[in-house]
This record gives sequence, structure tokens and C-alpha cells, in this order.
Amino acid sequence: MESPTLVAALRQAVPADRVVDDPAVVESYLQDHAEWAEYGRAVAVVRPRSTGEVQAVVRLAGERGVPVVPRGAGTGLSGGANALDGCVVISFEAMDAVLEIDRAERLAVVQPGVVNNDLRAVCAEQGLWYPPDPASAPWSTIGGNVATNAGGLCCVKYGVTRDYVLELEVVTGRGDVVRLGRRTAKGVAGYDLCGLMVGSEGTLGVITEVTVRLRPQREPERTIAGYFDSVVAAGEAVSAVTASGVIPSALELVDRHCLEAVDAWKNMGLSTEANVVLLGRVDTPGHAGEEEARTVLRCFEDAGASWAALSTDEQEAEALFDARRLAYPALERLGPVLTEDVCVPRALVPEMLARIEKAATAHDTLIANIAHAGDGNLHPLLITPIGDEAARLRAQAAFEDIISDAIELGGTVTGEHGIGLLKRNGLRGEVSAEVLDMHRAVKTALDPLGILNPGKVFV
Amino acid sequence: MESPTLVAALRQAVPADRVVDDPAVVESYLQDHAEWAEYGRAVAVVRPRSTGEVQAVVRLAGERGVPVVPRGAGTGLSGGANALDGCVVISFEAMDAVLEIDRAERLAVVQPGVVNNDLRAVCAEQGLWYPPDPASAPWSTIGGNVATNAGGLCCVKYGVTRDYVLELEVVTGRGDVVRLGRRTAKGVAGYDLCGLMVGSEGTLGVITEVTVRLRPQREPERTIAGYFDSVVAAGEAVSAVTASGVIPSALELVDRHCLEAVDAWKNMGLSTEANVVLLGRVDTPGHAGEEEARTVLRCFEDAGASWAALSTDEQEAEALFDARRLAYPALERLGPVLTEDVCVPRALVPEMLARIEKAATAHDTLIANIAHAGDGNLHPLLITPIGDEAARLRAQAAFEDIISDAIELGGTVTGEHGIGLLKRNGLRGEVSAEVLDMHRAVKTALDPLGILNPGKVFV
Repeated sequence: MESPTLVAALRQAVPADRVVDDPAVVESYLQDHAEWAEYGRAVAVVRPRSTGEVQAVVRLAGERGVPVVPRGAGTGLSGGANALDGCVVISFEAMDAVLEIDRAERLAVVQPGVVNNDLRAVCAEQGLWYPPDPASAPWSTIGGNVATNAGGLCCVKYGVTRDYVLELEVVTGRGDVVRLGRRTAKGVAGYDLCGLMVGSEGTLGVITEVTVRLRPQREPERTIAGYFDSVVAAGEAVSAVTASGVIPSALELVDRHCLEAVDAWKNMGLSTEANVVLLGRVDTPGHAGEEEARTVLRCFEDAGASWAALSTDEQEAEALFDARRLAYPALERLGPVLTEDVCVPRALVPEMLARIEKAATAHDTLIANIAHAGDGNLHPLLITPIGDEAARLRAQAAFEDIISDAIELGGTVTGEHGIGLLKRNGLRGEVSAEVLDMHRAVKTALDPLGILNPGKVFV
Repeated sequence: MESPTLVAALRQAVPADRVVDDPAVVESYLQDHAEWAEYGRAVAVVRPRSTGEVQAVVRLAGERGVPVVPRGAGTGLSGGANALDGCVVISFEAMDAVLEIDRAERLAVVQPGVVNNDLRAVCAEQGLWYPPDPASAPWSTIGGNVATNAGGLCCVKYGVTRDYVLELEVVTGRGDVVRLGRRTAKGVAGYDLCGLMVGSEGTLGVITEVTVRLRPQREPERTIAGYFDSVVAAGEAVSAVTASGVIPSALELVDRHCLEAVDAWKNMGLSTEANVVLLGRVDTPGHAGEEEARTVLRCFEDAGASWAALSTDEQEAEALFDARRLAYPALERLGPVLTEDVCVPRALVPEMLARIEKAATAHDTLIANIAHAGDGNLHPLLITPIGDEAARLRAQAAFEDIISDAIELGGTVTGEHGIGLLKRNGLRGEVSAEVLDMHRAVKTALDPLGILNPGKVFV
């Protein structure tokens, strides 16, 4: 008797309506938002409704040696969720329930498909706050955030996704359902396998439930804006803020290419006034917060801001942050945008920006910059006109230069987006051969059949 | 030709004066501070002065299949640093240099033998702060703190050791020297092998250098003290503080057995006034901090404190915390003390304390309690008269009950001390067989020869 096709077997393993093989629908699950990253043809997309269904899919995949690619909202920027030839994509859109909010313990238990902003909204109703705030928060899911250890604007003060993950339910490469971590505030029983899963980009386990630590809702933030003539001056302002002892709740940089693109689209008039905009925020309550805001303002002024002000108006402050948020779509109007994600020591932000500028010139590529400057996490945005293959090759050369420069400056090739497919060369440049061997050993230990998102992060 | 003895081979591998085999000296390196934990006979103690020397020892151990036991100050409370028969102990007392303090990046690079308080002192000179503050801080080393993921009093607000470890240099089980993690504020390149090393109790690698994240020096803390008639009332106060949204910088509980022992020794008169003392601290600056202190005070009063006050006097506040610090030595005057370390959901602190009381009665054992109450991390202190074997067996039965109870309440068997030897049964009770298998797989992947502190944490 011939064994059933993979699709037929999937429809036996889980309720048949979970399994999609209509090519037109499958097509929409093959890529994330990473420009340039290759992707393969999935045999099917499964949209499970329970951990048991996920386990059934992973077990079947294990029996058949079929790759499994877990997928959140597909907003990733490194190709981590891109399909592989012959794979099954597991999409978590139907596992989107907030299972529990515990005010006394300040934690939430959610299914992986919950959208980041939706969790934040539910928490806010209870006076609680889930800090990690990637720019993709309106669309990206907690499962995807965990898989990539997502960052965001408030990391500079509040840390990244890993800092908030208490416990995970995971389907392992062996098809077991395990719980890693714990619900208590502290705990050191055994290895931190929960933390190891965070940021492993689907290569060590398939996340089916997430318990996150919450904070009390915070005070409204105060915003400080500064216009600078040069990235060097802006960089000095960032260093001055760090040296001042104030830990801002955001410290963002937007360069003139972004300002021009936003102006061209929304006519905000920013680019006529500044080459670089810095946006700082502080959320320390009361008078101490006022003091901190004034300190940040003084750092901006002392570093030579051509204009700087403390915004007392919530709407005005939001408008400035809108300009930051609009940078990406404004640039996309000019052509496909590849978002880079290097992170360097804070003090080297001006040096790194100078090197990015050099790469732009050397390879005749338009590169705009937004940056989580307070973290040293830069997002050079490489723009290529649609269909211009030569421009694309030049941009790829610039991309490689930027990665090498970041490593040379003691930085990392990815601050928050992950390695996925795009940065595998970068990882090889960043860590030693022995460390890559440790990665392979851990991967083989936890995914002995090699079915979990194989070929992502490293080969 | 016969191969040289292990000691002779060690003296060829590293400068001969690093290797100690004088039995009287070796004897002093065989145990940590865990009562009841077994220990074996080490063949030699090596006190290396460089990473290269550590590597040479690990390589030799690998060639000969000899266990290696890394050791900080030996202040551990779970037997994690206890010697194994035939092992080589690597003691880091001579690798105690602070290599770098970078104010701009707010980080420090240290050798593993640096004492926690010494690092804190060096940081303070530069206006910086290394938060993790285990009670052992005057003696314990950063290497040991990292190996056990040490906690402390300020964890409730500032997190544990893992939250501060940016980068590690490690000698692996294969004898390679690797760098894991990074110096940048953020980074997601590859698996979090750095975080995996933290808390692995010497079983996955030997730490030879540690880069830690620092914070700006904080404002002086405000102290709120409360006396309560019952642990239930004190527990309600803790829950009320959590619900209030204030995150205290410490929230400690001391029970009447401790108060009596301190009184018997120092005659502070505490036990005539309270059954339970709660000590809260807040460090938010300025007026907002005053508000927070008043909120904590109100929580204490509303929960029925018989007396509660905001201490405006630094010395008075220190005296209260002294009583907490004195609890342990005061109890040791009564006999050997086994320090337990369970951690439960915050709201279940009163229930857990009640169960501890029950175990004390059921097994006729004196059990005193200090607790990081704000974290739900309890330290029942089991006291047995010297030489009373029957009492010791009863205490061990009480210890097993406490572990089972913590697991039953959704807690963990160790909040900050580690599994070591004492809690291996506890770990088996806490995590599933599949999760233990994952531990074994990771251990085998990273220490294929099985030479790194074998038999600790799990078998």
C-alpha cells in the first residue's frame, strides 16, 4: 500500500480544515518582509488550533523527514520565516487567545498568535504593561517576537523580549510537548532552556504558549526633540545622555534621507531644518522625570543642537515620533527597502554612521538611517529602484561592507531582527568556528532529525 | 614508559606553583557551604593565573577523563562546587582582576575571581552600579555568581545575575576558548549560549572572563519597616505592595524564629514586638520616591501591621537590615543550618510559610524563615543540633516536604542557590522527564567527554 501524500497525511493527523494546499493561498505564506531573501515552495500550510495539533504536525514531519517552518505574522526582516522547498508552514493565526492575565503575579499567558499590540491593549485595561515594542507591534505576534527575541524603542530602558519571557510551552524536534522556564519571579532549577528558545528563530522548537512578565502601567512619557547639523553632533548628544546617568525610555535617531522622504510624502518641512533629528523620551514619574527631561535637553544643546525643545504637548510629541514611524513607508515609495540591523557600542554610533555613508558613496546606493541610538542599534535602510538589477548588486555590496564594519567596531550583525537567511554570512564573521560548532551541537541535541526550520541562522 | 601522575602532568601543563596537592590545603577546597551535601577527594587544586592555564588544565583533564570542578569562593549553598573523587578543583582566587570599566558603554570586564563587593566598590568610584547583591557579596566571586545565576535583595526590582551578563569567555568541554554573547547593548546573532552558561553550575563550561552590564549609581534608598502578628498579615502586605504598582528595591521578610535568635545574641528586643518583620525599600528618586514609600507604608498598615514606619534615618534603616543579615549567623549559633531556597508565586508566600510551619511541626524540626518576599523566594533555615543524627534525619524529611510543597504550589525548588547536589531530586520533581532529557542532550553536546563538574544538577 502506498503511503498517503503529505497533504493527505496532514489531514489525517489534524482536522482537515486546518490544512491548506491551495497554491494561491500557500503563496501568501512563503516569505517574510526581508528583501532579497530566497524562499522555497511549501507543500502545505497548517493553521493549528491547539498544542496537540502542532505536536501532530511536528511528529508527522519527523516521521517523513519534512522541514517545518513556524510562522507568526510574517513581519520578520531576515527571512527567518521563509518557506523551504517541500516544507510544511505552521501558521499561528488561529492560536491567538490571551489565556490569562494574573494581576497579582503580574504575568500573562498567551497563545503564540496573539498580536503584540493586542496583548498590550488587554494588559492596559488591567493597569499593566508589556514593554517590548518592536516597530511591527501592530501586526507582529508574540510567538514571532519570542522566536526572534524582538527589541523595540523602549529596550534602551526596559530590555528585550527575552527579559519578559518567563515560561514557554514548546513542541520539540522529537515531537514532545515540554514546558520550559517557570511562572515564579526567580528560578535557577536547571539550564535556561527557556531563554535558549527565545531568539532561536524556530530552529530549536515550535512555541505553542508563552508566559510573559508584565510591569505596572507607567507614567506618560516626556519627549525631547533635537535637530542637529551632523551625525557626529547627534552622536555626541547620545554619548552625553549615557554619561549623564539618565536612562531614557527611548532615544531615536532619524537622518536627513528619512526626513526628506517623509517631507516628500507628507510635507512636514523637517528636512529644511535638520540633517539629523534625535528624539528622546523619559518616563520617570514626577519632578524627577522633569529633571531627567531637562538633563536630556541640556545634553542635546551642549552637543550643538541647532534646535532642541522639551515637548509639553502629547500631540506634538506624537507627531515627531510619527515622522520616525513614517520613515520606512516613506522610503518604500522610492523602491524596495532592505532594513539593516547592526548594533555597535553606543559611543561608536557616529563612526558607524560615517562608515555607512562611505558604503553608500562607494557603492552608489541610497542609504537612509533610523536608529535606536541609545542602544547603538542602527537600521540603515538600503533603497534600490524597482527592477534595477545593477543597483541591487551594488546595494548588496554596501550591505556586506556595513556588516564587516559593524564587526570591526566590536558590534554585532543583528541587534534585534535575527540572522534568518540574510545574515548567515554575518554570523560566520561575528563568531568563531568553535562557537558555530557549539550552535551545531546544540541544534543536533535538540532537533536530532533536523526538521525544525533547517538552514536558518547557520548551515 | 609510564605516563606521569596527574599531579606531575598538571605541573608540566601549567607553572608548577599553580598546582597544590598538599592534603591539608586540598582539604579546604572540597566543600562549599551546603550542609549535608556529600563531597569527594580531589587529586589536586589548581590556582590558574590566565585563561591559557585554565585551558591547559581542561585539556589535560579531557585527555585523562578526569573531572574538573570550577570553584569561586566556595560560598555556594547547594554543593555545586563540592569536589568529586579523583577530580581537579580549579580555584579562581588568583584571577581576581577588574580588567576594564567602560563608563561610556556602562560595562565592566572582570576575571572570575573578583569578589562581588570589590566590583561594586570599583564601580561606585566611577558613579556606576553593579546591581546583583547576593547576601554572600562580601565573599562570593563574580564567576561563582555567574555559574549559579545569583540573586539577592534588589532582584525584585533589578533582576538577577543573568540580566547583567553581556559576554563570557569560557573554556569549553572540548578545551576550546570561546567568547559568547557580546559587548553591545543588544544583539540576537545566534543562540543565547552566553545566557545558557549562566546558571549552568560549571557543567557546560569553565568561565574565565565576564563582561557585565552596569547601571548608573542610584539614589539612596528609603526604608519602610512593618511589624506583623502573623505571616498571613505580612503576606497580605506583600500582595498589596505588588498590586499598588510600586516596584520596591527590596522587600524582605524575617520571621519570629530569626528575631528570637537575633535577640538572644544581640539583645535587639525585636521578638517581643513582632512575630514577623517586613522590610521594604524604594529607590525612585525625589518626590515620586517619597510617594512610593508612603504607598508601601499604607500597604503595611492596611494589612494590619502592629507597627509600621518610614525610616528617615539611614542608620536606623541599616540597623533593621542588620537584623536581617544577622539572622543567619544568629541561627548558626544553635547548630548547623541548612538554607532552603524555594520560590513560589508571590501571592502564595503566606500559604508556603504555613506549609513550612507544618513541616517543622510534623518533623519536629526548628525552621526559621527569611524571605525575599517581593519575589516569592523563601529561605527556610533548618537547624539541627550538632551531632544529633536523628534530628538530622527528621530535618531531611522536612526538607523533602518543603520541596514537594513548593512544586505543588507552582513554584520552583531553587530561586537563586542552584541545584548542585542537594536539589537533584527536586529538579526531577519539578521538570518533566523530557525536559531532563533535553538537559542531558545539551550537556553531551557541549561537554562530550563528560569532564565538567559531572553529576551536579542532574545525573
